[in-house]
Amino acid sequence: MSRAEVMERLRDRGLELPAQSPPKHPYLATREDRGVVYLSGKTAMRDGVVRFRGPVSDDTIEVGRDAARLCALQVIAAIDASVGLDNLEAILRLTVYVWSTPDFEKQPEVANAASELLVELLGPAGGHTRSAVGVAALPGGTAVEIDAIIRVSGGDGQ
Amino acid sequence: MSRAEVMERLRDRGLELPAQSPPKHPYLATREDRGVVYLSGKTAMRDGVVRFRGPVSDDTIEVGRDAARLCALQVIAAIDASVGLDNLEAILRLTVYVWSTPDFEKQPEVANAASELLVELLGPAGGHTRSAVGVAALPGGTAVEIDAIIRVSGGDGQ
Amino acid sequence: MSRAEVMERLRDRGLELPAQSPPKHPYLATREDRGVVYLSGKTAMRDGVVRFRGPVSDDTIEVGRDAARLCALQVIAAIDASVGLDNLEAILRLTVYVWSTPDFEKQPEVANAASELLVELLGPAGGHTRSAVGVAALPGGTAVEIDAIIRVSGGDGQ
Repeated sequence: MSRAEVMERLRDRGLELPAQSPPKHPYLATREDRGVVYLSGKTAMRDGVVRFRGPVSDDTIEVGRDAARLCALQVIAAIDASVGLDNLEAILRLTVYVWSTPDFEKQPEVANAASELLVELLGPAGGHTRSAVGVAALPGGTAVEIDAIIRVSGGDGQ
Repeated sequence: MSRAEVMERLRDRGLELPAQSPPKHPYLATREDRGVVYLSGKTAMRDGVVRFRGPVSDDTIEVGRDAARLCALQVIAAIDASVGLDNLEAILRLTVYVWSTPDFEKQPEVANAASELLVELLGPAGGHTRSAVGVAALPGGTAVEIDAIIRVSGGDGQ
Repeated sequence: MSRAEVMERLRDRGLELPAQSPPKHPYLATREDRGVVYLSGKTAMRDGVVRFRGPVSDDTIEVGRDAARLCALQVIAAIDASVGLDNLEAILRLTVYVWSTPDFEKQPEVANAASELLVELLGPAGGHTRSAVGVAALPGGTAVEIDAIIRVSGGDGQ
């Protein structure tokens, strides 16, 4: 999947990648190690504002799914801004943290919104392993936070 | 440790690996990258049913430990179904998420049940690093969820 | 950054690395795989005692930051005790689990205390990606738990 194809798929769906700004904090957005790239946790922010707040319950599962989709777009945008979408070989692992009420057990349904979008937009390179867990609280009140480990081509000389 | 030896150790303990079905969801059970294999989070399910529910408290720690053991068997079964137990070189990292009541502080005791079983069944290849944390909620009400990163032999040509 | 320089920076700040004892539990403190080293979750312990307890709220954020700093020193100590600080090439990923009250949204401020200290003490090798999440409970009541994945030099023959 080339970057141009991904951009076309985004346009077809009326989606736009959120702008990436370097982290204000004393850490890195991404770090590459011989072709494996670690991405810092992404929240459901756009233009500096959390768009979908938790906690997620059975009544607000669609808010959670919207949050998961925005986190997925943040992941794609972070890949594009760092190593370039053309170099993405595979998403290896996502951890999907869902700010959950104590009785909420459908974290996978929330996480599926992110997983589906990644596969839709990135094709086979977007296929990934995943953990979905329910946490007590998240930064800035985001409903979902997602971090990732990816493989880029060429990074290890193979 | 050969697959046959692992199977014998399971039989000696009256244990059986849970059947693996491909994830219904838009993600992968495992993804290999040059000999490193990422495993999606495994819950305390057998035959499609969550067998040990949370939350775990001081009063239900044995339920948590039973859940952790079943998750460990799920990890072994996922390794066997994907890359084959004969190819397991090392379990590198487990993350053990324990659905916890707010006053429960013994996540390590729960996680130990998984760690002990992996070492008992897999020998030195089952030795691993680990994080054990207490989360607010988990998929389907499982008491424990465990994900893993493992190394298989031969995967990187070394 | 050589080990001697790190030790000097510690002394300049009146800091000391916590003593490392092998885990009592059936898991490993660290596991190396071709130059990538996985570190088990470290808590805010010194000499076997949790020094900074959670949960963290807006009123106790400084306790959380103290806990994060002690976890960061534990990470440095674990690197030194296993592969040696002289061999540290990069910290690739930190996961920062903050035991949080349900209304606490400043996990990044807590995690920053760890991130800042790692960069201050280790220089560019201490730069890392990060996830900061709020969890329901942590081992022994620690306010913060941090695990890490690092790269050491020479490990993969490159």
